[in-house]
Amino acid sequence: MKKLINAVEDVVRDSLVGVAAAHPGSLAVDLENRIVARADAPVSGKVGLISGGGSGHEPMHSGYVGAGMLDAACCGEIFTSPVPDQMMAAARAVDGGAGILQIVKNYTGDVMNFDMAAEMVSAETGSRIESVLVADDVAVQDSLYTAGRRGVGLTVLMEKILGAAAEEKQDIDALLSLAKRVNDGGRSYGVALTSCIVPAAGKPTFDLAEDEIELGIGIHGEPGRRKARLGSAAEVAGELVEPILADRDFTGAPVIAMLNGMGGTPLIEQYLVYGEVARILSGKGVTVARTLVGNHITSLEMAGCSLTLLNADDDLLRLWDAPVNTPGLRWGC
Amino acid sequence: MKKLINAVEDVVRDSLVGVAAAHPGSLAVDLENRIVARADAPVSGKVGLISGGGSGHEPMHSGYVGAGMLDAACCGEIFTSPVPDQMMAAARAVDGGAGILQIVKNYTGDVMNFDMAAEMVSAETGSRIESVLVADDVAVQDSLYTAGRRGVGLTVLMEKILGAAAEEKQDIDALLSLAKRVNDGGRSYGVALTSCIVPAAGKPTFDLAEDEIELGIGIHGEPGRRKARLGSAAEVAGELVEPILADRDFTGAPVIAMLNGMGGTPLIEQYLVYGEVARILSGKGVTVARTLVGNHITSLEMAGCSLTLLNADDDLLRLWDAPVNTPGLRWGC
Repeated sequence: MKKLINAVEDVVRDSLVGVAAAHPGSLAVDLENRIVARADAPVSGKVGLISGGGSGHEPMHSGYVGAGMLDAACCGEIFTSPVPDQMMAAARAVDGGAGILQIVKNYTGDVMNFDMAAEMVSAETGSRIESVLVADDVAVQDSLYTAGRRGVGLTVLMEKILGAAAEEKQDIDALLSLAKRVNDGGRSYGVALTSCIVPAAGKPTFDLAEDEIELGIGIHGEPGRRKARLGSAAEVAGELVEPILADRDFTGAPVIAMLNGMGGTPLIEQYLVYGEVARILSGKGVTVARTLVGNHITSLEMAGCSLTLLNADDDLLRLWDAPVNTPGLRWGC
Repeated sequence: MKKLINAVEDVVRDSLVGVAAAHPGSLAVDLENRIVARADAPVSGKVGLISGGGSGHEPMHSGYVGAGMLDAACCGEIFTSPVPDQMMAAARAVDGGAGILQIVKNYTGDVMNFDMAAEMVSAETGSRIESVLVADDVAVQDSLYTAGRRGVGLTVLMEKILGAAAEEKQDIDALLSLAKRVNDGGRSYGVALTSCIVPAAGKPTFDLAEDEIELGIGIHGEPGRRKARLGSAAEVAGELVEPILADRDFTGAPVIAMLNGMGGTPLIEQYLVYGEVARILSGKGVTVARTLVGNHITSLEMAGCSLTLLNADDDLLRLWDAPVNTPGLRWGC
């Protein structure tokens, strides 16, 4: 295992020390609770938007904290849910009097811990606290770690869109209804060329032969649909698009498309795959209105990529385009 | 070799197809000449800022084209200089009547080809065309591919700062003087944990044992100063900072610090190393005013990172903070 770390047990903490050093003006890092919050939190009259999950997916979630996106992120150990104490500390930090909304990726541990935190926050403060589950991965119906679909790339889009709506002081019911539209309209699918190595494990999570890929991979290296021979990028793009379009009709409204790198795949390859994806989508009558290419929700150094499509009406596009000022997504600010 | 590509000889072109598809409103991609230009080029009365070099370092350079940064990027084959015809096409595309400035990383092939292009453009159009060389890598004095120091991470800062100055219509002499200040005040040093694989070669550029790193690595996998055992991130951070501070005194004015990922190193590790770097710099009396952490000048999927420091007065900081709207760096727009 070749990694730029100190002790294995300190990876998340040590990395947050770097986040604090790199973004002193805009982010407040609580090293004890391992939460990253907006420096100006709580913002009065604004729904406090919290997310979090296992670390190792950076920039998600800590890199999406800031004006126009999350108010706080709770950083678990690598690929391990944060604990309820973290969400409680985050809720206290960002409660601006308009309630708290938790964005939770659909994994059993995350769902349980965010639910527990919500109950405790509500009992402690009386503040209204709600959760939305992201469950966009069409690869598998249930999995090792989930009942129902896994939450993957759509989480990035959910955080951006709800963040924009929260920033303009939409209330919690409006955000819940918006989250439903995002969940209904969004689908993802991923492919891995190599495994990653979780520091505490010290060895690859799974094995792939030199000519093999895993189709439908999860963001923690969970098995997908099947192994296949690595073909051309055009073929891989076809494998990404097909299950998404088979699951939902994406014609009739423009889409936001994210071609996401899993961590170890160079940007030149990500753009190359996106070129093939765009060609296929165009041939299928799907109109791409906005595109995001890059490492946005990663699995440490895993090589591979994922595709997320979100059917977006004018309102969703407006919220997508709204100013955002985070380390991971930044425009208009 | 496991890569998301079609034919090896089409990697650069196919990736540019993706760039065109992903950024239709802001970038104009000339597939025949493999140049990426601002969609609104030429901007009248503005110095046309061109850079380029071998591909495989994305987002540099094509990802730094846009308002507030480059007017055009010339994309060579992977790790291979673009040819003068490409720079000539770029110059024609971005000549707004205030002259052309080429930002060239100091590699023999690049220097020769940009010089040749400058002579031909000047002869053809009569426009004034100048070049600035970036040569910031303190690792080696001469190398396999250079006379003098290699141009590495400082190129990103040079493109941002000159881009901001060009955007506010500073003239070409002012830009040349600014470039001299950036070159005088900037230094870089890098470390690799793994090699990358150039598609056309199909095998790793160099070998490193499982516990070995290369200190002073170049961005094409050129040898550095020495191999060493991989220690803790704190030790690696020390190895990054020491040769830079030994080469130049960075106390007395604030610095812009870039901790750059080489492509295959997860962001969580990059922030972790940056935390250690920040601690060391603080102990040495170096004041960091701005920080950039992420994959900004990469070597395909190489694991490792580099550090760039630039001594920056208020004027340089103002230009650094100025709005920029490119796929790779975006703020204020």
